[in-house]
Amino acid sequence: MIVVMNINATAREISDVIARIRAMGYDVHLSEGKERTIIGVIGRGRPIDREQLALMSGVQSVMPVSHPFKIASREYHPDDTLIPLNGIMVGGPNLAIIAGPCSVESREQIIETAYAVREAGATALRGGAFKPRSSPYAFQGLGEEGLRYLAEAREATGLPVVTEVMDPQLVPLVCQYADVLQIGARNMQNYTLLHAVGESQHPVLLKRGMSSTIEELLMSAEYILSHGNMRVMVCERGIRTFETYTRNTFDINAIPVLKRLSHLPVIADPSHGVGRWEYVESVALAAVAAGADGLIIEVHPQPEQALSDGQQSLRPERFAELVARVRQLAPVVGRQVAEPQLQQV
Amino acid sequence: MIVVMNINATAREISDVIARIRAMGYDVHLSEGKERTIIGVIGRGRPIDREQLALMSGVQSVMPVSHPFKIASREYHPDDTLIPLNGIMVGGPNLAIIAGPCSVESREQIIETAYAVREAGATALRGGAFKPRSSPYAFQGLGEEGLRYLAEAREATGLPVVTEVMDPQLVPLVCQYADVLQIGARNMQNYTLLHAVGESQHPVLLKRGMSSTIEELLMSAEYILSHGNMRVMVCERGIRTFETYTRNTFDINAIPVLKRLSHLPVIADPSHGVGRWEYVESVALAAVAAGADGLIIEVHPQPEQALSDGQQSLRPERFAELVARVRQLAPVVGRQVAEPQLQQV
Amino acid sequence: MIVVMNINATAREISDVIARIRAMGYDVHLSEGKERTIIGVIGRGRPIDREQLALMSGVQSVMPVSHPFKIASREYHPDDTLIPLNGIMVGGPNLAIIAGPCSVESREQIIETAYAVREAGATALRGGAFKPRSSPYAFQGLGEEGLRYLAEAREATGLPVVTEVMDPQLVPLVCQYADVLQIGARNMQNYTLLHAVGESQHPVLLKRGMSSTIEELLMSAEYILSHGNMRVMVCERGIRTFETYTRNTFDINAIPVLKRLSHLPVIADPSHGVGRWEYVESVALAAVAAGADGLIIEVHPQPEQALSDGQQSLRPERFAELVARVRQLAPVVGRQVAEPQLQQV
Amino acid sequence: MIVVMNINATAREISDVIARIRAMGYDVHLSEGKERTIIGVIGRGRPIDREQLALMSGVQSVMPVSHPFKIASREYHPDDTLIPLNGIMVGGPNLAIIAGPCSVESREQIIETAYAVREAGATALRGGAFKPRSSPYAFQGLGEEGLRYLAEAREATGLPVVTEVMDPQLVPLVCQYADVLQIGARNMQNYTLLHAVGESQHPVLLKRGMSSTIEELLMSAEYILSHGNMRVMVCERGIRTFETYTRNTFDINAIPVLKRLSHLPVIADPSHGVGRWEYVESVALAAVAAGADGLIIEVHPQPEQALSDGQQSLRPERFAELVARVRQLAPVVGRQVAEPQLQQV
Repeated sequence: MIVVMNINATAREISDVIARIRAMGYDVHLSEGKERTIIGVIGRGRPIDREQLALMSGVQSVMPVSHPFKIASREYHPDDTLIPLNGIMVGGPNLAIIAGPCSVESREQIIETAYAVREAGATALRGGAFKPRSSPYAFQGLGEEGLRYLAEAREATGLPVVTEVMDPQLVPLVCQYADVLQIGARNMQNYTLLHAVGESQHPVLLKRGMSSTIEELLMSAEYILSHGNMRVMVCERGIRTFETYTRNTFDINAIPVLKRLSHLPVIADPSHGVGRWEYVESVALAAVAAGADGLIIEVHPQPEQALSDGQQSLRPERFAELVARVRQLAPVVGRQVAEPQLQQV
Repeated sequence: MIVVMNINATAREISDVIARIRAMGYDVHLSEGKERTIIGVIGRGRPIDREQLALMSGVQSVMPVSHPFKIASREYHPDDTLIPLNGIMVGGPNLAIIAGPCSVESREQIIETAYAVREAGATALRGGAFKPRSSPYAFQGLGEEGLRYLAEAREATGLPVVTEVMDPQLVPLVCQYADVLQIGARNMQNYTLLHAVGESQHPVLLKRGMSSTIEELLMSAEYILSHGNMRVMVCERGIRTFETYTRNTFDINAIPVLKRLSHLPVIADPSHGVGRWEYVESVALAAVAAGADGLIIEVHPQPEQALSDGQQSLRPERFAELVARVRQLAPVVGRQVAEPQLQQV
Repeated sequence: MIVVMNINATAREISDVIARIRAMGYDVHLSEGKERTIIGVIGRGRPIDREQLALMSGVQSVMPVSHPFKIASREYHPDDTLIPLNGIMVGGPNLAIIAGPCSVESREQIIETAYAVREAGATALRGGAFKPRSSPYAFQGLGEEGLRYLAEAREATGLPVVTEVMDPQLVPLVCQYADVLQIGARNMQNYTLLHAVGESQHPVLLKRGMSSTIEELLMSAEYILSHGNMRVMVCERGIRTFETYTRNTFDINAIPVLKRLSHLPVIADPSHGVGRWEYVESVALAAVAAGADGLIIEVHPQPEQALSDGQQSLRPERFAELVARVRQLAPVVGRQVAEPQLQQV
Repeated sequence: MIVVMNINATAREISDVIARIRAMGYDVHLSEGKERTIIGVIGRGRPIDREQLALMSGVQSVMPVSHPFKIASREYHPDDTLIPLNGIMVGGPNLAIIAGPCSVESREQIIETAYAVREAGATALRGGAFKPRSSPYAFQGLGEEGLRYLAEAREATGLPVVTEVMDPQLVPLVCQYADVLQIGARNMQNYTLLHAVGESQHPVLLKRGMSSTIEELLMSAEYILSHGNMRVMVCERGIRTFETYTRNTFDINAIPVLKRLSHLPVIADPSHGVGRWEYVESVALAAVAAGADGLIIEVHPQPEQALSDGQQSLRPERFAELVARVRQLAPVVGRQVAEPQLQQV
């Protein structure tokens, strides 16, 4: 059971609720977000009278545990969560299209790509400055230098920046440069990091771990939400299966399931989901048809020279075609893609 | 290496080719289909001069082994294979929509459903008379009685019948009643059965095994093709993964991959692919957006009373809505759904 | 619920029980084995008084459905099932060691291997005459010729023969030559075939499908048992996972789980389970330590020339070392390996 | 290609090597561990003369990239790595047995358990103070208080302490209390954390991610090794598969594979590997038979009251039986378990 306190609940009200719960033989887990405090009731004690608790001063609601995730659930928040990004509300009728290279490789590369994707109709620019690589000897990203180039690209094009943060200590630094913090698939259950981005107020793009269930993805979102940051987008990016022809298996089922279980926007990453550029457009269209709120697509001016993920990156002209196809498809599922000029500075 | 003989190659031409291959130190595997003979070159011998072989009398072509499947590959047959079904050509611009209950349960149930799905725009009627069930104590289907009801439903509605065959010995019997033979997921590598349907000239709907790779699916298609039956549709129906919220994981990637690797029509089964009726429409739309040539959907007049698969069956009215949505979506990917009246008798 | 009839129940007794069940609003599924009839109660009717049914004439027992498998369960048959093979009882303290090539390739190869594995301490000889191959162009086995060579090898060495049957129609033929019928992994849910071997009285070695759960394996065993053949050994042979370094992932957990859930002997196949000969001995020892009742091991006199599975086949001298190690390990888990001389003719 | 510098290579020698590599058109990746510097050669340039590089001052060796991991490979370090723990050398003939509760729950619980597992023959004590939990509302561990109790338990019993660290910033704190740092499965690819423990000189127990391949596990070990910490034990703890009867699928194949590919000690975790206490002993014996260098086992005085993982925890008396069985089995595979008295203070 979860007790959700009012946003302006006082410390005294909170401690009264805790005392009452303990008196009934339970322990409590306190999630003190910047915005609100949530009290988890732990263990087994006397039957709890939910009505009584709900009547206490400072309590907003008392929720039974139907799903292990609470704040992320539709029961808790029936309306779609909307997150502003470059003039659109992600989660609403406008599809968010986030595009750019896997890694920021140079100032020229990222600025050239930013102009190209903006022209094609992108809503935001992606690019990795800190790269999680399975080999310690592989290119690890340009680090803060990469962040500066991303900021320059935003300056030039007006596109907000989505970039990954891997180190909890670097969250404040990345927040200085980025508009959206990306949590990568490998870090989906890095709770120290989830805690750190939960303390920030930056929007978060949380990628599903490559072998995480839908429920585990929503539990990781819950970590961020329970620390007070309500701006979470979850991202389906393909799961690990026995199939080896494709890099991952894009879990198309997860799109409508996530939309039903949760109010959070759902972004699809067909680039990682299939892992070969020839198939990215088909999977992107499928994701939109299935109800995704947006796409994140890898685009590189010269994929054959990319330092990472070249095999799954689209050239800008192919990306423009993809956006054109999505623009045609969107109305069938009650969506639209903003025209390119709307995103200009 | 594979030697494909001409359709009218003589026994003498075939034996000459075999003799030549053996003289070079190889063994041969002979696939004598009704239409043509294919000679597989097995083992390791002296380097083979493909040109020489290709020049022999009766030889159509000599193919190196790039994919393990040959006749199923786009290299072998660059154009899409088209299979006639109820006035449309499956594999062409018209989407095939096959619908009906998991099991034929009674004469009334199957005829009522047939009328309902025809009205909604279905191209063909599905229904199982022989059911593969993991429990020997579960309902195993009505058997030949079920086949007769299916034939009655066809008589009444004009819809061709798609039904599963499990026993190689029963192929002739099922061919008497069915228009399309379905090979179920559990039997995808039942080579005795593949051989038997390969000897018939009935169109085959070959379902992907729940843990079979895309390549293995095409290898199983190859079994049927190599026995002379060229009318094979392959069907993506979800694979087994670690995710437990959905019954299977529909492999959306497989749709464009199969279309690129092979010329065979690709049918999507979202009912099994997601396993819960609430999500069937979203996955169906996704499959069409990704390039599927058709859909196979479970429809039951009273899903809560179905003897099998009730949880993933749509009521007829929901199915009609699904077809209406597919009809809107199809033109975006260059397809169409024939209007209901076109399918009337 | 399952009603198990006495072995000598009369047709009248059976029809009386069926009538009673139907009168309560249920349907029945009849499994008429050669030895006994089992009646499955299907559907939802009035609450059943088990006591009453159990008191009817000809009824042996009435079992509730705790597991979906019944006859295969420990509840139904608390003692270990013992199956005689070459003088030992499989399922008892003596470990069964079945060894031989993947495929019978020639008369000499199988006889030479038979002598070699007998000398090392094998209990039985394995060898495939009918081979399920994913490619229609790969070597499919010698067929009946292979069966004859196996019979010659038995004649020469006294080793009983374990060989696969794939075609339900060929069960009588294979029974003429083989001592144990093997059902391969791809056919674990080929119910027509399970039915056919269930009608025979030959011992069956049932391999787990590469993506089948433990429960599904026991359900497939139930098919055979419910048709009256009680001599079933189940075989763990590795499952399909995301790991690609090994051919399969040997599910060591399945060994103790199967022993607890069921009374049937459990055979381990480390050759397929790991797929590389360097690791076969380690996995074989692990399987015995975990409680397996026997091993099935691929042995080939010249693995580098094997027509199939060469990479996972042991040379006879390595196999002899493996048996020697197993002989040392066995007493730690209360087992033994019979000395070679015991198996001589 | 990887250039391994001598331990005492000077900054000048390092910069000379870098300059030479760059002159050939490559980029470099520098891993500056406390002990030694390793230079990764990145990109495509002119063919490199390995001999020339190897002859440069300060260079120890130049290695081609056969496996993506280098320092972790047997080619790089043919002898087994030995890591001292409580008087034995892990990786040598003595099996390490690490035992204790999932979580430190109280001072009494951990000290009582420590005495019990020491008496049964444990080499070290495990216990979590910081717990990664998929729910933010679940018990997260006692934190530093838990570390203090672990230190008290060590004081009392002489058993060294193995405990998890999740936060890179807390590595120094945990090092104050722990003898071995555990990296949990969820953090196997948390590179910031791997970097931090690589900078320490504490032994590390690195658990395989639940969906990580064997190669990825060794790549993560490589991260730690490349930062200068050579004391890494890798741990197989079960992988995520389609099987749901057991919590995970213990990958027994991974034991001999890891021993062949790498020189690092391999520890088996049957508690997580199977997830149900009834089966832990069987899987533990299997792991030792397959070549594991040690075991890590969850033991709790009252499993039914454990705050986490009660279902897979053994009571102390069952653990003692398990150790007794392992002690019998060990000599068959050339191992031994030290007698309890040897571990006393």
